[in-house]
Amino acid sequence: MLTVDDLNPAILNVQYAVRGELAIKAEEFREALKDPNASSLLPFSKVVSSNIGNPQQKGLDQPPITFVRQVAALTEYPELISTAKDAFPADVIERAQELLAEIGSIGAYSHSQGVSFIRKSVARFIEERDGYPSNPNHIFLTAGASFGVTLLIQMLIKPVTPNNPSPSGILIPIPQYPLYTATLAQFSGTPLPYYLDEPKGWSTSPAEVKAALAEAKKKGVTPKALVIINPGNPTGALLDEKTQEELVKLCEEHNLVLLADEVYQSNLHRAQEAPFTSFKKIVRRMNSPVGLVSYHSTSKGVTGECGRRGGYFECTNFPDEIIALIYKMVSVVLCPPLSGQIGVDTMVRPPKPGSPSYDLWKKETDATHAALASRTQTMAKRLNALPGVSCVESPGALYLFPSLYLPEKVIEEAKKQGKKADELYAMDLLKATGICVVPGSGFGQREGEAHYRLTCLCPGVEEYISALENFHLSFMKKYE
Amino acid sequence: MLTVDDLNPAILNVQYAVRGELAIKAEEFREALKDPNASSLLPFSKVVSSNIGNPQQKGLDQPPITFVRQVAALTEYPELISTAKDAFPADVIERAQELLAEIGSIGAYSHSQGVSFIRKSVARFIEERDGYPSNPNHIFLTAGASFGVTLLIQMLIKPVTPNNPSPSGILIPIPQYPLYTATLAQFSGTPLPYYLDEPKGWSTSPAEVKAALAEAKKKGVTPKALVIINPGNPTGALLDEKTQEELVKLCEEHNLVLLADEVYQSNLHRAQEAPFTSFKKIVRRMNSPVGLVSYHSTSKGVTGECGRRGGYFECTNFPDEIIALIYKMVSVVLCPPLSGQIGVDTMVRPPKPGSPSYDLWKKETDATHAALASRTQTMAKRLNALPGVSCVESPGALYLFPSLYLPEKVIEEAKKQGKKADELYAMDLLKATGICVVPGSGFGQREGEAHYRLTCLCPGVEEYISALENFHLSFMKKYE
Repeated sequence: MLTVDDLNPAILNVQYAVRGELAIKAEEFREALKDPNASSLLPFSKVVSSNIGNPQQKGLDQPPITFVRQVAALTEYPELISTAKDAFPADVIERAQELLAEIGSIGAYSHSQGVSFIRKSVARFIEERDGYPSNPNHIFLTAGASFGVTLLIQMLIKPVTPNNPSPSGILIPIPQYPLYTATLAQFSGTPLPYYLDEPKGWSTSPAEVKAALAEAKKKGVTPKALVIINPGNPTGALLDEKTQEELVKLCEEHNLVLLADEVYQSNLHRAQEAPFTSFKKIVRRMNSPVGLVSYHSTSKGVTGECGRRGGYFECTNFPDEIIALIYKMVSVVLCPPLSGQIGVDTMVRPPKPGSPSYDLWKKETDATHAALASRTQTMAKRLNALPGVSCVESPGALYLFPSLYLPEKVIEEAKKQGKKADELYAMDLLKATGICVVPGSGFGQREGEAHYRLTCLCPGVEEYISALENFHLSFMKKYE
Repeated sequence: MLTVDDLNPAILNVQYAVRGELAIKAEEFREALKDPNASSLLPFSKVVSSNIGNPQQKGLDQPPITFVRQVAALTEYPELISTAKDAFPADVIERAQELLAEIGSIGAYSHSQGVSFIRKSVARFIEERDGYPSNPNHIFLTAGASFGVTLLIQMLIKPVTPNNPSPSGILIPIPQYPLYTATLAQFSGTPLPYYLDEPKGWSTSPAEVKAALAEAKKKGVTPKALVIINPGNPTGALLDEKTQEELVKLCEEHNLVLLADEVYQSNLHRAQEAPFTSFKKIVRRMNSPVGLVSYHSTSKGVTGECGRRGGYFECTNFPDEIIALIYKMVSVVLCPPLSGQIGVDTMVRPPKPGSPSYDLWKKETDATHAALASRTQTMAKRLNALPGVSCVESPGALYLFPSLYLPEKVIEEAKKQGKKADELYAMDLLKATGICVVPGSGFGQREGEAHYRLTCLCPGVEEYISALENFHLSFMKKYE
C-alpha cells in the first residue's frame, strides 16, 4: 500500500489556507444545511464563503458581464448565429465570427502559448494602458494567473546540489497570497519575507526589501526574484510610482526577476488618490533592463470569470532563449483552455462606445465597481468601530484584512487547541454565523499579531456585517 | 539580464517532440501560405498537422458532437433557455438546468477536485464500465489528462539528498508519449524504459518490465511507478487481460503505483478482437492492493474536445491521507476549467436511447468511429505496400507508428546535419508535402531504428496518402 513516506517530502510542506481546514468545515456545513434534521441544529441558514475571491459563486452571485457570456456561447455553438440570431447583438456575432475565423473550433488545441490573434489583442491592451510597445510573442495565455506563477517559480528555483550549495530564495511580501509560499514549498525554494507596513496602509517599503536581502545574504540564500502583489492581496494596498521605481532599481542591483502579480489592476475603489501603474510602464520609462513578468487574469476585476481559467503573463527584458524555454514548458501541457483564452479576449477588448453592446456593458461594469467600492467602505468603517479591531480601508482588490487585538484568554485557549489565535477566531466565527474567512496566519504576519481576510463580495452587506459585529462582541465578551 | 544559467537546469533537459522543431517549422509554412508571394514558392497548398491528436483543428475539421456543444452553450449563457428555446432539444435544456443548479455559475471556481455532482456522474460511468464500485471522492477532475499525470509524477519523485541517495525512477514504455519523459526531466526523475514488442503488434511484455526493474536495481534507482498507455500512444496497441493481470502482480511485488493512461479507451477500431479492459476492473477483480491511478480525457475518443481541457483521474487503493495531499496540491491552482468539467459530464453521460438528442448523437459518434477505423486501415495497408516501410495496423487510439528501413546514405546525411535519420525524413516530408509528423526519436525507439508517428485524422485520405507515397518513393530514390 502506498504511504506518505513514498512521496516527495516537499509536498508535505505545502500549505494553502484559502482552501484549508476552514473551507473544508464550511463545505460540511453547506452539505448539512441541505438536510432538514441537521440544519435545524445550526445557528445560521446559509454559509457565506468570504474566504476566496470568487465573485460568481452561489450566495454571492455577482452577475457575469453579458457581452462575455454571449461571445462565449456563440464560440461554443456557432450554429446559433443562424438559428438564434435575434438573441445576440451584432457586435457579439461579429466578435464570435472573428474569433472563430482565427481559432477554427473551440474544441481544438491552440498554439501552446495561446491563440496568436488573442495575444495580439492583449499586446494592444497593454500598449494602450502603458504607452509602451508590447510584443505578442512575449505574452503567454494561461489557465488563470496561478499557472504562470507556478511555472516561473519552478523555472527559477535551482535545486541544491554539491555544485550549487546555495538555496534559491524568492522575496515575498508578508502578508502574501499563499500561492507563493505553497509553490516555493513544492519546489523547495526559500521564502524571503519582507514585511508590509500596516500603519501606513500596508505600504511596501524598499528598506524592508533591502533588509530581507541582507538577511538572505547572511543565511547563504541566493535571491532570485522579487514578488510584488499590486493591488495587494490580502491587503488591497496600491504602490506609488516612486516606490515602484525604487523597487525596480533594487531588482537591477541584485539581478532579481520582478514577478508582478497585477491581477487586481482594475479593482480600484479610489482611483483618484490611489491609482494603478503597471510595472511594465515603470520598467520601460526607466529604460531598465530588469527581467519582469506581469500577471493578469479574467478571474478578478469586474469580469470575475474564475471558473473559466483565463489569464496571461507578459515577459519584459527576457532573452529569446528563455522565451523558447517557457514555450517548451507550456507545450508539455498542450494549451490553456480555449474558453479562458476567449475570456481574455473579451476582457482586453470590451465593447467600444457606440457599439450595440456598449451601454449594457457599461451599466453592468459600473454597477459592480460601485458595489465593490461601497461595500469595502461600509465594511471597513463598521469593522473599525468595533473594540479590538483596526482595519485599513483597502483602496483596491477584493479584500479587507482587519487586525484583531484579542484578550490574553483567547491566546491561551488557542494554545490549548493547538491553534493560532486568529484560527480560533475564524473557526468560532464560522460555527456561529456561517461566514467563512481566512485567518491571518494563512497569509503570514508578525509574531503575536492576529488578522483575518474577508472578501467584499457579499450582496446583503447590512445583514452580513451585523452578523460579523454580533459575533465579534460576544467573542470578546466570552474571553474578556 | 536574466540568462539560462540563472534557471533550474532540470528545465533544460525537457524534450517534447510533438510540439518541437517540426511543429514550429510547420507553423512558419502555415504563416507563409497566407502571403501570396511566399506561398507560390512552396510545393504544397496547405499544411496538414498530423503531429498531434487534435481532431477538430483547422484542416482536419472532425465535427464536434452537437449535444456536447449545445449543453456547453446553455451553461455559458443560460438566458438562451428563454430567448432561444427552439434552438435546443428538451434533453439539452434539462441537462444544462441540472448542471447549473449544481454549479451556480460557470464563472465561479468549483470545488478544487471538480464539481461533486460531475464526479458522481464519472463514478457511475466507471461502475457501469467495470462492474465494480467507484468513489467520487477518489476522482479528481483535471484540465486534460496531462495535468494529472504531471501532478502524480511530481508527488512520486523524491529528490536525491544525503538521506535519500537513490534516485526515484518510473517505468515507461518505449515508444512512449513524451509527456512522461518531459515530466520526469522537470522533476529530475529517472526514466526506466521497457521496450514494446513491434513484431507482436507493439505488445507489452511483463518480461521486459522485469528486465527494466533488474536494470534499475543494478543502477541503484528506486522504481516508484509503472506507466501503461492502453490503448497505446504512439502504437495504438491494446493489452490483453492476461498481460494486465501479470503487470498488476508485478506492481504488487515491487510496490509500484500503476499509472494507467487510458485516454484512448473509446478509440477501438476492431473491438471484437482487440477490446479494452480498464486496469480498475483488473485490480478489483484480482482483489489487488495495488495503488492505481487511471486517466481519462475529453480530448480523445470521438468527442475530440481538446481545447476544452477536460479530464479526470481516479485513484484506487489510495489511503485517505494521500487523497488529502492530492486535494491540497490541486487546491493551490484553485480548480479545473468549468467548461472542461462540463465536457466530462457530457462525455460520461451521453444522451440515452429514446431521448430527443440520441439519434443525432448516435449518428455523429458512429460516423467518426467509422471514419477513424477505415482511415487507419487504409493508411496502414498503403504504408505497408511501400518499400522500406512496415506498419502495425493499430487496433486503437488515433495513430500509426510505421517503421522505416532507410538506406545507409540517409543515415550518413542525417549525421552530417546533426539529426537522427527519422528527423531528416520527417523534415523532408514536411518541406515536400506540408504534412507534419513526429519522428520516432521523439517517442523513443531502439538504437538504429527509425519510425514516425502520424495521426489518422485527415479527412481527404486518398490525396493525403498519395502525397505520403510519392514523397517516400522519391526520398528512397534520392538516397538509394
